[in-house]
Amino acid sequence: MDMLHMAALAKSAAVKLGVQSSQAKNAALSAIASALSARAEEIIAANRRDLAAAEQAGIAPAVLKRLNFGEAKLAEVRRGIESLIALPDPVGKTLQATELDDGLELYQVSCPLGVIGMIFESRPDALVQISTLCLKSGNAVLLKGGSEARHTNQILAQVIAAAGQEAGMPCGWLQLLESRAEVSEMLHLDDYIDLIVPRGSNELVKYIQQNTSIAVLGHADGICHVYVDAAADLSMARQIVLDSKTQYVSVCNAAETLLVHEAVAEAFLPELWAELQRAGVRVLGCPATQAIIPVEAASEQDWRTEYLDYVLAIRVLPTLTEAIEHINHYGSHHTDVIVTADSQAAASFFGLVDSADVFWNCSSRFSDGYRFGLGAEVGISTNKVHARGPVGLEGLVIYKWLLKGQGQLVADYAQGRRKFTHRALDRKFSLE
Amino acid sequence: MDMLHMAALAKSAAVKLGVQSSQAKNAALSAIASALSARAEEIIAANRRDLAAAEQAGIAPAVLKRLNFGEAKLAEVRRGIESLIALPDPVGKTLQATELDDGLELYQVSCPLGVIGMIFESRPDALVQISTLCLKSGNAVLLKGGSEARHTNQILAQVIAAAGQEAGMPCGWLQLLESRAEVSEMLHLDDYIDLIVPRGSNELVKYIQQNTSIAVLGHADGICHVYVDAAADLSMARQIVLDSKTQYVSVCNAAETLLVHEAVAEAFLPELWAELQRAGVRVLGCPATQAIIPVEAASEQDWRTEYLDYVLAIRVLPTLTEAIEHINHYGSHHTDVIVTADSQAAASFFGLVDSADVFWNCSSRFSDGYRFGLGAEVGISTNKVHARGPVGLEGLVIYKWLLKGQGQLVADYAQGRRKFTHRALDRKFSLE
Repeated sequence: MDMLHMAALAKSAAVKLGVQSSQAKNAALSAIASALSARAEEIIAANRRDLAAAEQAGIAPAVLKRLNFGEAKLAEVRRGIESLIALPDPVGKTLQATELDDGLELYQVSCPLGVIGMIFESRPDALVQISTLCLKSGNAVLLKGGSEARHTNQILAQVIAAAGQEAGMPCGWLQLLESRAEVSEMLHLDDYIDLIVPRGSNELVKYIQQNTSIAVLGHADGICHVYVDAAADLSMARQIVLDSKTQYVSVCNAAETLLVHEAVAEAFLPELWAELQRAGVRVLGCPATQAIIPVEAASEQDWRTEYLDYVLAIRVLPTLTEAIEHINHYGSHHTDVIVTADSQAAASFFGLVDSADVFWNCSSRFSDGYRFGLGAEVGISTNKVHARGPVGLEGLVIYKWLLKGQGQLVADYAQGRRKFTHRALDRKFSLE
Repeated sequence: MDMLHMAALAKSAAVKLGVQSSQAKNAALSAIASALSARAEEIIAANRRDLAAAEQAGIAPAVLKRLNFGEAKLAEVRRGIESLIALPDPVGKTLQATELDDGLELYQVSCPLGVIGMIFESRPDALVQISTLCLKSGNAVLLKGGSEARHTNQILAQVIAAAGQEAGMPCGWLQLLESRAEVSEMLHLDDYIDLIVPRGSNELVKYIQQNTSIAVLGHADGICHVYVDAAADLSMARQIVLDSKTQYVSVCNAAETLLVHEAVAEAFLPELWAELQRAGVRVLGCPATQAIIPVEAASEQDWRTEYLDYVLAIRVLPTLTEAIEHINHYGSHHTDVIVTADSQAAASFFGLVDSADVFWNCSSRFSDGYRFGLGAEVGISTNKVHARGPVGLEGLVIYKWLLKGQGQLVADYAQGRRKFTHRALDRKFSLE
């Protein structure tokens, strides 16, 4: 089937999926979890083929690890599906209800987006996670995985699509794309696809953001800052910097740049530097940093770099204002932290830092859907519209305005025969 | 100043505008209303120059009418500003609050989008309306109006920008673009501009949607349907069709296509046709319609046409399902109406019609921010993300996640020394 037909099928499936009851969707999710267990041997065999081919091609051990999908991963994705079943249905919530006039009632009710285009690299578990998130939120999904996981993705998509369909979900609710050409084509199908969710390298995300007019949910860079203010508790600051930098270096919410107020730089940097060295962190610094600790010079490019590694760039600045300007100018609007005992400084930082997540006196690593208590994470968004920061299921829904009348006409209001009441109703949508 | 510098200035203004208090923004809005009165003569004189040039160029009377900006329009936009001042501030609302752990509190707080790019045609009052909506919601704005209103737009932008700035709003909060080349450039400045709002012809909106990866809020077509079900009250249906079609024909929420269930077509169409003729509506129909009333043939292209005129295309269909499929296939996902006494038919229509506004037993013309009670209307969106249907001030805001801690580190949770509580807090964000 060509891309256009796949997209049209997905759109027609989405309409039917959008009216499935919570019970039906949860039953389908259970069926998918069972099918993944029942077909475990085939799935693991397919994954072994991908792993063997990747090893032969000399792929890096880190990529091989992400590619691996054995018993442990299967158990993990099944647990993920069980938690997803337990979450409330994001569809059908009455967000607002207003009486426009006697017998004319307006309801704003959440509904699925429609068709989600998902592009991900190397981790086959992402396929299970995103397809079940889409099902729970009533969205059809077009998936494209990395070619190195081709066999694993094929069997997973086949098992999940079939189990969902047997449990009553519409034909075409999940479809797997096979080629890059299909992805390019998909990016232009704005009449069929409502949201693109890329998960992978900065390059992948940037390429997609720049090559589609469809909304894209995600983030390219995670250039996160910790700013240590003049009024910081320096022992707390040291721990926060170490946790933000070293607790897990290869993730988007790890800190890449440390900004230090000049008033505390001399007191703060030497001890921090000793600890960073013990943790194996390579440190780069601005001239003012180099005047205090003997580190390599940071170039301007370092302020724009997401190392995703044991590397930290340090800049000493004379004011909070300049720290905020640095963050807004060089950062990626993802997660930024201030350490300070001065609540006025925190207030300025909260107000003026233009990032999805702005933190005071805690680690940047808290920026995560599970830690935020969202239950499930679709991704982390640095968009300014729709959804920002860690995004749960509510990022996959929008709303409709439903208006129930008894024959009301606009001419009556335009000509003053009737008046709007515009009274808020404390009521959920129902047909009665 | 070139476009890139204008955009950079707007972005830096947006950061400062985002933290203005409600009082300061309302004071600036009052100052703008006063300045518009104080400078009325200059504004009206500039508008006369535009009108004279347009008349000389032989521009259509309808366009001339929209271009006119005299005492009456000035009074109208001033009244608009007064109502805007009375509306609640959409910025700084706590949308959600969660205790992640003792002393670690997460707040989701509404904030401005940042920089809005606004492109509008011919009506200078749109300049006043959108710039004041942006100010109220804390957004900087880059405006481009139609060239036929050049002088009016220049004086209005100058008066409004200066009055806002004198009242304490940051320099660059409102800037006027002068050329089409600047618009083309603006559409590529996704690092600076957070949302594009086009207001004008279908062609303008489509051009913009297809030429930017920045989010666009708006709608191109308004191909709205009224579907008269087998179980409709035919007298109610007749009135709803007439109001939806003729109450104001040149607007996006007027009906363009009538769908009729075949079971009631013979009883319904002849009397309706008589009334449509009295109202001066030209009627086109499918073969089944033509078998009942002597009207011109509708082509497939008619189902995709937004007439914005006294023209109605009629199609008779055998089932509700086919009516829904027609709407989802040919419509523009704007506003669609079912007339029926059967609540199960209404339930299917509400669930399966993929439109921003889905109405039951009332006119399509209710699809409007003021009629919906939103207080102010930014526009009507047929997007699936961010904001859908009539959009009020809340379409110009997003949110930040603010996390207040006391030195918490992720390592403590990862290693099981501490556990998340994830307890909902019934509390607004504050620094204490």
